[in-house]
Amino acid sequence: MLEALKEEVCEGNMALPRHGLVIWTGGNLSARDPQTGLVVIKPSGVLYDHMTPDDMVVVDLDGKVVEGDHGPSSDTASHLYVYRHRDDVRSVIHTHSTFATAWAATGQPIPCCLTAVADEFGGPVPCGGYANIGTEEIGEQIMAHIGDSPAILLKQHGVFTIGATIEKAVKAAVMVEDVARTITYAKIVGRIEDLPPEAIAANHDRYMNRYGTAAASTGVK
Amino acid sequence: MLEALKEEVCEGNMALPRHGLVIWTGGNLSARDPQTGLVVIKPSGVLYDHMTPDDMVVVDLDGKVVEGDHGPSSDTASHLYVYRHRDDVRSVIHTHSTFATAWAATGQPIPCCLTAVADEFGGPVPCGGYANIGTEEIGEQIMAHIGDSPAILLKQHGVFTIGATIEKAVKAAVMVEDVARTITYAKIVGRIEDLPPEAIAANHDRYMNRYGTAAASTGVK
Amino acid sequence: MLEALKEEVCEGNMALPRHGLVIWTGGNLSARDPQTGLVVIKPSGVLYDHMTPDDMVVVDLDGKVVEGDHGPSSDTASHLYVYRHRDDVRSVIHTHSTFATAWAATGQPIPCCLTAVADEFGGPVPCGGYANIGTEEIGEQIMAHIGDSPAILLKQHGVFTIGATIEKAVKAAVMVEDVARTITYAKIVGRIEDLPPEAIAANHDRYMNRYGTAAASTGVK
Amino acid sequence: MLEALKEEVCEGNMALPRHGLVIWTGGNLSARDPQTGLVVIKPSGVLYDHMTPDDMVVVDLDGKVVEGDHGPSSDTASHLYVYRHRDDVRSVIHTHSTFATAWAATGQPIPCCLTAVADEFGGPVPCGGYANIGTEEIGEQIMAHIGDSPAILLKQHGVFTIGATIEKAVKAAVMVEDVARTITYAKIVGRIEDLPPEAIAANHDRYMNRYGTAAASTGVK
Repeated sequence: MLEALKEEVCEGNMALPRHGLVIWTGGNLSARDPQTGLVVIKPSGVLYDHMTPDDMVVVDLDGKVVEGDHGPSSDTASHLYVYRHRDDVRSVIHTHSTFATAWAATGQPIPCCLTAVADEFGGPVPCGGYANIGTEEIGEQIMAHIGDSPAILLKQHGVFTIGATIEKAVKAAVMVEDVARTITYAKIVGRIEDLPPEAIAANHDRYMNRYGTAAASTGVK
Repeated sequence: MLEALKEEVCEGNMALPRHGLVIWTGGNLSARDPQTGLVVIKPSGVLYDHMTPDDMVVVDLDGKVVEGDHGPSSDTASHLYVYRHRDDVRSVIHTHSTFATAWAATGQPIPCCLTAVADEFGGPVPCGGYANIGTEEIGEQIMAHIGDSPAILLKQHGVFTIGATIEKAVKAAVMVEDVARTITYAKIVGRIEDLPPEAIAANHDRYMNRYGTAAASTGVK
Repeated sequence: MLEALKEEVCEGNMALPRHGLVIWTGGNLSARDPQTGLVVIKPSGVLYDHMTPDDMVVVDLDGKVVEGDHGPSSDTASHLYVYRHRDDVRSVIHTHSTFATAWAATGQPIPCCLTAVADEFGGPVPCGGYANIGTEEIGEQIMAHIGDSPAILLKQHGVFTIGATIEKAVKAAVMVEDVARTITYAKIVGRIEDLPPEAIAANHDRYMNRYGTAAASTGVK
Repeated sequence: MLEALKEEVCEGNMALPRHGLVIWTGGNLSARDPQTGLVVIKPSGVLYDHMTPDDMVVVDLDGKVVEGDHGPSSDTASHLYVYRHRDDVRSVIHTHSTFATAWAATGQPIPCCLTAVADEFGGPVPCGGYANIGTEEIGEQIMAHIGDSPAILLKQHGVFTIGATIEKAVKAAVMVEDVARTITYAKIVGRIEDLPPEAIAANHDRYMNRYGTAAASTGVK
């Protein structure tokens, strides 16, 4: 069942090590089938190099395993909580990517001190409180703090990203690591400060609504 | 039109991820055709892996799209402003490369504390003020602060480089990231200080005028 | 003799540079044959690229070379000490991996401030005192301080990991470097704090007993 | 002339980017022919990817170009000064490798706080004063400060390594970057301290005289 989505989810998971966001069996990506409402997710504890679409696990929104030879990712409950509370989300990703997790370790949001943060996240990348893995607490923290951001840090744990497509969730996972990396190094260089709210709003609006379209203006008056 | 230049510009853009200077669809490179004065630039929001010469967008110096299926880079206005104000520039690059952007985040120039900085940049790498993306403000900041440097940081944003050839602009983008990286780590190690002006001038003169030529002397007296 | 194990040990050693844990001829992995009690170990000072299973050295638990054209790793005494004192250990690894060794340089354990540390190590990664290489002092420090952790730092030296299989020892070497890297960067970002003991125990229990099994629950109540 | 040595020198130069020690046209490696006393060195300003053995430049110890279509490396005077003052040196390397140069930027030696530093360098990696490129000043600084170390930092510039073979000079260039990297990160983690002199001497003696030989003892008493 859901063979096409299993392939997409397997490929999406493979993108995580390719972008340097996960190691060994860590991290996981899921996607929801809009027709059936079922969720396809990475199996628990399987190495990325050995993973095939057939290893993906299908679960329903209540956490019942519908199909799969492996146990589902130990973060399944968190993914499902998000799907149940956000109809717009079709893909969820969890990683311990180095720099985003460095910020999570301190419990601090990533400040919106660069245009790249405003573009993709529309403000600081929020940080939820500490929550127990494998329960619904993580989902609760995500819903309580993520707002309109496609990414959220979880204190002393790692990062979750969401998207209307697998590609958008992967992009958020790549971008949150990238801005976390840059801003970590910026803290060695000197003092950083938030962009003013109107600059954040202007960047985010341009990036969300005109970037990458034929309507991208050359900006020359 | 401009098929040869489109290929060069496409290849120049592909050099940016190969040198680790950009991720996803970020960053962009353009070049100006000396005959027609037209500018070929990366399309907005297209992934590097999927880019072909045919995706490049041709614009005139006033920002009118002359040819192209995609919208031009959202930084087109900044590129064009530079071309209109600097006849010697044939290529412009914009990136958010990690370490150069870390310095930009703090609004500080990269100090000329290493021979490598003196060689390539002839002094500190300047940092322009914050400017709105997609308008001509960025071009104005570049012109106001770049002086004789092939690279400039833009506060809370990223880096622009310029060159008389595509290769020279790419080299400046590679070198500014490299010296920013080294000097960021140097700040962990200890105190850094500027080279004296006469040492900066001597290094820059040697590098610009004799390095890489048959006239490179062995220096033995 | 022990041809199959020599191949496994050679492959295990090759995994170290592939995971970025060693350079040049540094680092080494050994494994014990459960039947004979003999230990197969990397030869001393041989480049990873040039290594074949035939280069592996077979020693007995008292340090007598049983077979091999090369001298055994200069860390052989430390490996053997561990095998003699821990029946459960079938593989030992030594590396100078960058971030774990950065912590070792300061003589500090890696704090258990992230779920990833609790998962794999069940507490802080301990740090033994300085010990002379090539003697049994290192083995003594390992036994005195490793406890239930699969990894230990050695002050001003590097890291040792142990496992019931080669794969588990390699995994511990990969994970200790990963958490050391993340927490080093976290120290740039801000203040870190240990997880509370009950959170550490809950994470470690889940990871050791349910992670990667069909019994991995979806956690939905 | 010297075709075999040109090939070795070309290959040795290619090892520098492969080990991540140089970018663009930066850095250079030379070797001396023991029969003729002539030195083969990298050409000035040629990209590593495009380099062939025929591009290598042959100079005599007084700096006269004996053969070559390109100008010799702009650091030729420094290489030759070393060869004239150290009969045991057959290869010289210069790089701006990131972490070694970060230490050089601050003018500080790399402290001997790890066994890896004691092994390869027998003490701290020394740092010479600032000297003008392309003159003999660099050679003078090297000779005044390098002592028995195979590597030396040059203040606000970069690193030079020497060896009785090309491989040994390359190894020193790899190892100095590696220990500089580790100790830079250690400075984020906490306080570092030098090994005591007797530990330094014991490590260096073992590494120089027994490591990598069949005489490598298992150390079990």
